[in-house]
Amino acid sequence: MKLLPKNKKALIKAAMGQIESDLLIKNIQLVNVITGEIYPANVYVHEGFIAHVEEGELKEETPLAKKIIDGKGSYLIPAFIDTHVHIESSMMTPRNFAKAIIPKGTTTIVTDPHEIANVFGVRGFRYMYDSSENLPMRQLLDIPSCVPSLPGLENNGATITAKEVEELAPLPRVIGLAEVMDYIGVINGDDRMLDIIDVAEKHGLYLQGHAPYLSGRGLSAYLCGGPNTCHESTTPGEALEKLRKGMFVDARNSSIARNVKEIWEGVKEVKFFDHFSFCTDDREADDILNDGHINDVVRYGIEQGMDPVTAIKSGTLNSARESHIENLGAIAPGYAADMIILDDLKTLIPKQVFFGGTLVAENDQLLVDIPDKAYPLEQENSVHIGDLKEEDFLIKVATKEKEVEVNILSYPLLDQPITTLESEILPVVDGHLSLAGRSDLQFVAVVNRYEDHSNIGLGIVKNFGSHCGALASTVSHDSHNLTIVYENPKDALLAALELKKSHGGMSAVKDGEVLHTLALPLAGLMSLKGAEELAIDSAKMKEANRALGLTIKNPLLRIVTLALPVIPDVKMSDLGLVDVLEKKLIPILKEK
Amino acid sequence: MKLLPKNKKALIKAAMGQIESDLLIKNIQLVNVITGEIYPANVYVHEGFIAHVEEGELKEETPLAKKIIDGKGSYLIPAFIDTHVHIESSMMTPRNFAKAIIPKGTTTIVTDPHEIANVFGVRGFRYMYDSSENLPMRQLLDIPSCVPSLPGLENNGATITAKEVEELAPLPRVIGLAEVMDYIGVINGDDRMLDIIDVAEKHGLYLQGHAPYLSGRGLSAYLCGGPNTCHESTTPGEALEKLRKGMFVDARNSSIARNVKEIWEGVKEVKFFDHFSFCTDDREADDILNDGHINDVVRYGIEQGMDPVTAIKSGTLNSARESHIENLGAIAPGYAADMIILDDLKTLIPKQVFFGGTLVAENDQLLVDIPDKAYPLEQENSVHIGDLKEEDFLIKVATKEKEVEVNILSYPLLDQPITTLESEILPVVDGHLSLAGRSDLQFVAVVNRYEDHSNIGLGIVKNFGSHCGALASTVSHDSHNLTIVYENPKDALLAALELKKSHGGMSAVKDGEVLHTLALPLAGLMSLKGAEELAIDSAKMKEANRALGLTIKNPLLRIVTLALPVIPDVKMSDLGLVDVLEKKLIPILKEK
Repeated sequence: MKLLPKNKKALIKAAMGQIESDLLIKNIQLVNVITGEIYPANVYVHEGFIAHVEEGELKEETPLAKKIIDGKGSYLIPAFIDTHVHIESSMMTPRNFAKAIIPKGTTTIVTDPHEIANVFGVRGFRYMYDSSENLPMRQLLDIPSCVPSLPGLENNGATITAKEVEELAPLPRVIGLAEVMDYIGVINGDDRMLDIIDVAEKHGLYLQGHAPYLSGRGLSAYLCGGPNTCHESTTPGEALEKLRKGMFVDARNSSIARNVKEIWEGVKEVKFFDHFSFCTDDREADDILNDGHINDVVRYGIEQGMDPVTAIKSGTLNSARESHIENLGAIAPGYAADMIILDDLKTLIPKQVFFGGTLVAENDQLLVDIPDKAYPLEQENSVHIGDLKEEDFLIKVATKEKEVEVNILSYPLLDQPITTLESEILPVVDGHLSLAGRSDLQFVAVVNRYEDHSNIGLGIVKNFGSHCGALASTVSHDSHNLTIVYENPKDALLAALELKKSHGGMSAVKDGEVLHTLALPLAGLMSLKGAEELAIDSAKMKEANRALGLTIKNPLLRIVTLALPVIPDVKMSDLGLVDVLEKKLIPILKEK
Repeated sequence: MKLLPKNKKALIKAAMGQIESDLLIKNIQLVNVITGEIYPANVYVHEGFIAHVEEGELKEETPLAKKIIDGKGSYLIPAFIDTHVHIESSMMTPRNFAKAIIPKGTTTIVTDPHEIANVFGVRGFRYMYDSSENLPMRQLLDIPSCVPSLPGLENNGATITAKEVEELAPLPRVIGLAEVMDYIGVINGDDRMLDIIDVAEKHGLYLQGHAPYLSGRGLSAYLCGGPNTCHESTTPGEALEKLRKGMFVDARNSSIARNVKEIWEGVKEVKFFDHFSFCTDDREADDILNDGHINDVVRYGIEQGMDPVTAIKSGTLNSARESHIENLGAIAPGYAADMIILDDLKTLIPKQVFFGGTLVAENDQLLVDIPDKAYPLEQENSVHIGDLKEEDFLIKVATKEKEVEVNILSYPLLDQPITTLESEILPVVDGHLSLAGRSDLQFVAVVNRYEDHSNIGLGIVKNFGSHCGALASTVSHDSHNLTIVYENPKDALLAALELKKSHGGMSAVKDGEVLHTLALPLAGLMSLKGAEELAIDSAKMKEANRALGLTIKNPLLRIVTLALPVIPDVKMSDLGLVDVLEKKLIPILKEK
C-alpha cells in the first residue's frame, strides 16, 4: 500500500518552498535508515508528509513553516512500527492501546484481531477497525486466517473463511492476511488454507506467516504456499534458516515470549538484514507502561550487540517493507512524517513523538486527545453459559472399579506451555474421579460460552501450578471459551458465575470466596479501562493467582494457553482432551 | 506484483519431497542475496519456482527430480533484472532482443516502450506487449508517461493521457508507470502529469522516475509527486542526494551514457544499498553481443570496487524490490526459478542460464526456440512524408538584406547532447540562407512523418560533427520525426526519399550517392533482423556516418537527440527551434 497525501499539489508546493510548510524541525541529527548514515539536517513537513529534507545547517530563511521546532542537535529517527500485534492481549481497547503506546514512539502497528474474531467473527473485526479510525497513530489490520484454529476439535464463536476474507480485504486499512497459523494445513495443501490464501493474493494482501519450529522441507513447503514472514522463531538455527530461505524474521519480545536474544544469536553473522524486523505480538498494559513497546524491543536488540542504526532500521523501514507499506519507516520526501526526537540511540527513550507531523507525545505524556467513544459491541455480553451446577464439574465414570487409569495432560515446565500426554490411576468415588491428596493434579473444565453450543470438556492437568480453589478465564486462546482449573466443583462454579456476572475476564476463588475478579466485559477479552487503571487491576489478579499457588512471573499467562490446541502435545477444548499432533480427541479413560 | 505458480499444491508437494521435482541443481555454491552469504547447497525447482533449498551436501536420495544437474561446485546466483530498458534502442524486436540478452543472463527486464508509443500510441504498446508473450524470459512493461514529451512544441504520432494509462494498467505484465520525464511538470504541479500519476497509483502501479540534475527542493518536490526511482544520475553528489532522499538509484551503463563509475563514487561510503540497482536504458545489438547486458553493468560495478555479492544483489533482488516484484531476484523457496550457474563472481560470464527452471542458455548460446512470429504492425509503414522537393530544404528569408543574423543551436562537445543557443550572421543568396564555406555549420530539417501533420522545422546546427552530404534518421527522440542534417538540399532530399522507401531507418548520402541505409521498417525504429545481422548492418551505417565527418565512437547516436526538446538548452522539432528551458519556440531570425 502507498500512503497518499490528500492534496499532492500543496505538498509539492511546500517542498518547493512556494508555501509555508506546516512544520520545520531544524537542527537535528538525522538517522537515515535508507543509507545508514547520521548527519545534520532540517526536515520540513506538510499535511502529514515529509516535504523536504535540507542537509547541514539551515540556510534559507523564507518561506519556512507555520511551526518551527529546534531539535538542538538531538537525533531524529523514524517512528516505530510493530509488524505483528494482538491488541486484545493488552486487554485494552484499540483506543486505550493507542494512548499507551504512542508515548513510547510506536505510531504504526499491524494488528491481527484474531482473538476478538474468535468470539465475534467479522463483527469483532469491524469493531477493531471502526474503533481505530482517526487515531493519532496508524492501526493497520491483517485479516485473521485461522478462525477457529482447529476446526472440528473445538467450538468457538465464529468462523472466517475465504468469503469473509473477500468481504474485508477492500477496507482501506486492511493490508494483509494475518499469521497463517495452520502451517500443517498449508504444507498438506488443505483447501481451507489455500482457498483463504488465494483470495488474499487476489486482493494484493501480503501474507503474514507463523511457523514455529518449522524447518527443512516443511519450511520450504510453507513458503511455497505463500506466507513469508514469521514471528515464531525461538532458536538461533531456526532464525538463520528462515532468513536464508527468504522469510522475513520478526524478532519478538512479548510479555510471554522473549526471543530476540536467540534470534540475533542465530543471524548476527550475516551481511544483509533487510528481512529482519521486530514485533511485540502480545504485550500487557503494565509491560508497556514499565518497559515500553517496540522501542523496548529494539533497545534489547542493541543490548544484544546490534548496531543501533541497523536495529532502528529493523524497527522502522524493514517493518514497513515486510508489510508492503511503501512510503513509511524512513525520513525522506514523500514519506509519512512519523518521527521521534531522542537523545540516545541506545536507550531509545522518545523526547518527542510525531505522527504525520503532529506532535503527539512528549516526555512519555500523550499530548493529543483521544476522546472516549462508545461502540455497541463494547456493551454486548459474549459469555453465554447456561445454568451451571456443581455436578457439571464432576468427571463421571461409568464403572464399578474403585480406581481407573485416566489420560491427563502434564506440564513438564512451569513457564512453558508445552505439555505431554500422561496417565494416572485415580480413585473413583460416588461415580466420579477424585483427586484427593494429589496437590499436583487439578481438574480442568472448558465451558463453551457461545450461543450455539453448550459443551463442557472435562479433564485433568498435572503440574499446572495452582494447588487449590479455582482459577477461571474467558481469555483462553484461541476459542476463548471459559476455562477453569480447580480443586473442587464448588469453587469452580463460583468462579464461573463470577465471570458470567462480569461478562468475562479472569477470576480466582478459594474456599468459597472470590479472591479477585478482573472484569473483561468486551468480548470476554478486554477491559474498557485505560492502561494505568488496568495495570493495577491486573496486579491484583496476579496476586490472587499466586494465592492459589501459581508463583510464576506472570501467572495470568498460565491458563490462557491451556485450551490452545495448536501447542503440542495435548491440550483441552470444549470437546475434551485434544491430541495436538494427531489432530484427534483422546478419551478420558485410558484404553486397556 | 507477485508471481503465482499455476499449481500451488504440486509446488508444495515437490517442496515436501512427496513428488519428484522437475529439476535439482546439486552441488553448487549458493549466492544468497537475502543474507549476503555464500554456502554449499542444492536447489529443487518445480513448475517454474524454487521448491526447496537444501544446505550442505545432498543428503536424501529419493524422491529427487526428473532432471538433475551437477553444479560441480560452481556458483549459483539469481538471474539478472534490468530495471529500465527501451527495447527499441537496440533496434530489435522484443523477440530478437530476448534472443540476444538471455545468453547474457538477463531473464527479466522492465521495459518502457516509450519510443514506439510516440509513433503508434497504444497500438505500439500493445505490439510490444503481445509480441513478448510466452518468451523464455520475463518482459514486464511500464506504461510510457510522457508521450509526447513536450506537448505544443513538437508533433509526434500519438498521445498517452490518463485515459490510456487507465486502459493499459490492468494488463497482467504491466507493473509500473514508466520514467516520468516531465519532472518540470511534476514539480510545477501540472495537471497532465499529476492526473497520469493519480491513475497509476490508483491501479497500484509503481512510479518510475527520471530526474537528471534535479536536486534540493526540486528533487524533494518530485519525490512528493510520487516517482521514486531514477536512472539519470550522472554525478557522485547527485547519486548520493537521491539515495539519501529515498530514491532508488539505478546505475546505468547504456551504449550512450556510462554513469556507474560516478554513481558508485558518490554512494560507496554509505552503509545500506537496498535502494541501489542497475539498468541499461539503451543498449545496441553489438554492445550486447560484445560486452553483455546487465551482467556487464554489474561486472563494471565490481571493477569500481563494489563487493561482488552486494553488486549481484543490486542487479537482482534490489531491482525486483524497486519494481515491486515480490518473489523474484533471490534463490529461496517460492521465488521464481531464474538462476545462473557461473564460475567467477567478478567476470559474471554465465555458464548456464535458467528461466523458471528451464535451461535456456549455455556458454553464450540460446538453447530454446523463440519462433519467428509475424505481427501486422511490423508491416505497417509509419513514415508518412509527402512529396518533398529540394526547395523544401531551403531556409527562405523575406529580406532585401545581403546578410541576416540567425539563431542557431550549437554543440559545445562532440560526444554530449547538450547544446547552447548562439547566433551567426549568414549571407542571403536567392532569398535563402547560405552556409557556403562554413564546414562547422549544417542545415537541419525535422520533417513530421505522421499522417495528421506535414510540418517541416528548419534550422542551423553548429559543431554537429558532419561536414558534408546528408545524414537522415527516423530514430529521433522522442517524437521520432524524420531528422536530416545536411550540407545541401539535393542530398537531403535523396536521404529523405531513401528512408521513405525503407519505411524508416537511417541513411547517409554524399554527392548524390547513398553511402548506406540502415532500414528500420518497424515504426521507423526497429529492424526485424536478429542481433548478429543487425550488428553488421549497423557497423556499415557507422562507417557511412564517419565518411560524412562524424568520427565519434558511436556516430549513430549523434543525430538521434538533435530533436529531443527535453535536453537543454535548445533543440529542434518539426515546429522549429525550441528553447528547452523556457519551453517556447525561437524564430530563426534573431530579433534586433
